[in-house]
Amino acid sequence: MQRFHQLPRGDAESFFEELDAHEHATLLLQLPVKERRAFLRVLGPDDIADTVQEADAEDREALLGLLEDPARAEVVALMRYAEDHAGGLMNPRFSSIRADMEIDEALAYLRRRARANEAMDPTYYSYVLDSAGRLLGVISLRGLFAAKPGTRVHEVMHRDVVTVPEDMDQEIVAKLFEKHDLLALPVVDGQGRMKGLVAVNDIVDVLEEEATEDIHKMGGLSEALDTPYLDTPIGEMVRKRALWLSVLLIGEMLTATALSYFQAEIDKATVLALFMPLIISSGGNSGSQASTLVVRAMALGDVRMQDMARVFRRELTSGLLLGGVLAVLGFVRIIVWQAVFGSYSGHAIGLAGTVGLSLLGVVMLGTIAGSMLPFALRRAGLDPASASAPFVATLVDVVGLILYFSVASVLLAELFR
Amino acid sequence: MQRFHQLPRGDAESFFEELDAHEHATLLLQLPVKERRAFLRVLGPDDIADTVQEADAEDREALLGLLEDPARAEVVALMRYAEDHAGGLMNPRFSSIRADMEIDEALAYLRRRARANEAMDPTYYSYVLDSAGRLLGVISLRGLFAAKPGTRVHEVMHRDVVTVPEDMDQEIVAKLFEKHDLLALPVVDGQGRMKGLVAVNDIVDVLEEEATEDIHKMGGLSEALDTPYLDTPIGEMVRKRALWLSVLLIGEMLTATALSYFQAEIDKATVLALFMPLIISSGGNSGSQASTLVVRAMALGDVRMQDMARVFRRELTSGLLLGGVLAVLGFVRIIVWQAVFGSYSGHAIGLAGTVGLSLLGVVMLGTIAGSMLPFALRRAGLDPASASAPFVATLVDVVGLILYFSVASVLLAELFR
Repeated sequence: MQRFHQLPRGDAESFFEELDAHEHATLLLQLPVKERRAFLRVLGPDDIADTVQEADAEDREALLGLLEDPARAEVVALMRYAEDHAGGLMNPRFSSIRADMEIDEALAYLRRRARANEAMDPTYYSYVLDSAGRLLGVISLRGLFAAKPGTRVHEVMHRDVVTVPEDMDQEIVAKLFEKHDLLALPVVDGQGRMKGLVAVNDIVDVLEEEATEDIHKMGGLSEALDTPYLDTPIGEMVRKRALWLSVLLIGEMLTATALSYFQAEIDKATVLALFMPLIISSGGNSGSQASTLVVRAMALGDVRMQDMARVFRRELTSGLLLGGVLAVLGFVRIIVWQAVFGSYSGHAIGLAGTVGLSLLGVVMLGTIAGSMLPFALRRAGLDPASASAPFVATLVDVVGLILYFSVASVLLAELFR
Repeated sequence: MQRFHQLPRGDAESFFEELDAHEHATLLLQLPVKERRAFLRVLGPDDIADTVQEADAEDREALLGLLEDPARAEVVALMRYAEDHAGGLMNPRFSSIRADMEIDEALAYLRRRARANEAMDPTYYSYVLDSAGRLLGVISLRGLFAAKPGTRVHEVMHRDVVTVPEDMDQEIVAKLFEKHDLLALPVVDGQGRMKGLVAVNDIVDVLEEEATEDIHKMGGLSEALDTPYLDTPIGEMVRKRALWLSVLLIGEMLTATALSYFQAEIDKATVLALFMPLIISSGGNSGSQASTLVVRAMALGDVRMQDMARVFRRELTSGLLLGGVLAVLGFVRIIVWQAVFGSYSGHAIGLAGTVGLSLLGVVMLGTIAGSMLPFALRRAGLDPASASAPFVATLVDVVGLILYFSVASVLLAELFR
């Protein structure tokens, strides 16, 4: 704060501009009241709306009071949109021209507006609107420059404009940007009237935000943190972590229940207990890989609901191959230990077979559960990213242990008699 | 392919433009030779370079042969840059003006070039270069529009240009875009000569790519897939998954070794085996959460190497609280089962205490190992994202089991006498 005050005004404004909404609100409220207005003016109406929303209820009025009437009306209108919808992301200022303008007239008009420092599209598209504000077409500055002098805007504008409704989710807006490689997308209401534009710059932040949300969920948080790690109060962070950990622990208690049915077997062959962690962790690891691949592919749009059968077949094959590799490793480990240390007396082959077969089964279980769970969650209207590594592992643990002891009861039958 | 041929030419070109480099290469090579040239021309030199690099060695020459000499030289020059460096990302075409031009002269010049359909910046900045091609300043079209007619470019241009060296990693370039909120960044060589520009649109793809890479690594793949899930040959996918699964299995074999030292204890108190999966999975889950939070915070730049001590303190506190919650749940589970089913005869309190204390310990172990491992990896020059859920879980499993049996040997000493 001290250092901020020592900056020359221009540098302070540039620095201020680069902060995020939370930082804007915090810094503004620390400034003397008479300086607030000047800094708030540096921001566009969409950023001001975000900043006001970051402030506490009592401070919001104070911040809104700094604005002149028309700007305040714009900001209040923006605050009505959900933050993660196109409407909450858009800038209500953009440059518009009329369809019957001549090219030179349109350029002169844009130049006059730029000189008057009026609202102008931060990117370089001009939108062609009719008298009711309905969007008829779009033309880039490059397009205006390249057009033959004397032609009219409607002769050179693009009419098949990609538009975005006000309530479109920001994740879908981001997909449109990727698909069409545009610098900005116009936001229109139900009547086709243009309300503002979303610039590709805003999408950069959206993508980071959405990736963080998915990553946090996939890492086993019930809810993503919405503030940077070090800025999140420890109480909030523990709450968001404790819920899932507790649910998973309760799920994992089923392993104790399942194992209690095999207590007699463990009693007779304690050696089986030694390989339990290895079996269940392999199921969890292969499940984590599979769910990670599918959840991310869904987020990128590479895998859709109708691809479920294809994914199932791929994961079945992968599970067989991966399980085969681990089965061989597990089998060899036991045979070698038996040969070198004589660890497992007369039952080494049966034990090696049990561990090998169980590894094969549990890895297949993991890849299938991990790859199908995201589909099930999406079908149920939930976020596929909740198919986190810990969730899949817990699912696989119970079934994996039952499988292990079932295989043992066949291959090591002589121990249980 | 059939459907592609039925599209009118304009639509086919628009459709083609929206594909990615891999799809460009595949589609081009399926087209009759005489149509290839027309479609290749739709793409900018940076996209052509990516497309050529996606093709097999023998097809590359064929594709390069479709280009006219100057375009081919541009593309070949771009192919020398690493794909994930600024040089590999940049477009070598941009619009440049001279510092001593008058505003109207500069605008007229840009307009002439646009009409001649010559290379022009796809965004809306004009770069001011000296006669040696060194970058002196930048001005936006909006800036040119807003300038008083009669002033010269050097009077209104911005001189403190944010530039990017040719070999800057794309992840760092992406950070600069986020920080400065620009539409394009100029790429300069060691002598300050401008070589091209990276547009914010390209960064959208980079961010998706980098997030996918981190997500795949965090999900326990030794290497991220670089093609969409369904397009990746199953052999390649299995290879990228098998390596890590095998390494983790070999690591997990240590649990069998560790447990063999406790075989006597398990023999005397089989009941201890029932809670092993629950103990180790809780350590894995809390570790997965902690590593996910820290790895993502590092990727976003929210946590840096010097924050290690702060992160350690936060995770110590979180681990205590989270471990406390799970300890209580585990303790209560055993006491309730004893009360209702009489499951654990006279040792319920000792067992409940053992499970509760071990949960507390193992959760703290998980949060500390999960949060510190990314720092250790980064310090060792490795990718922190390799601190995946499965890796952390495997680390914690061995120590967690030793902890569990050590606690048991104290609290359940009467069983082992």
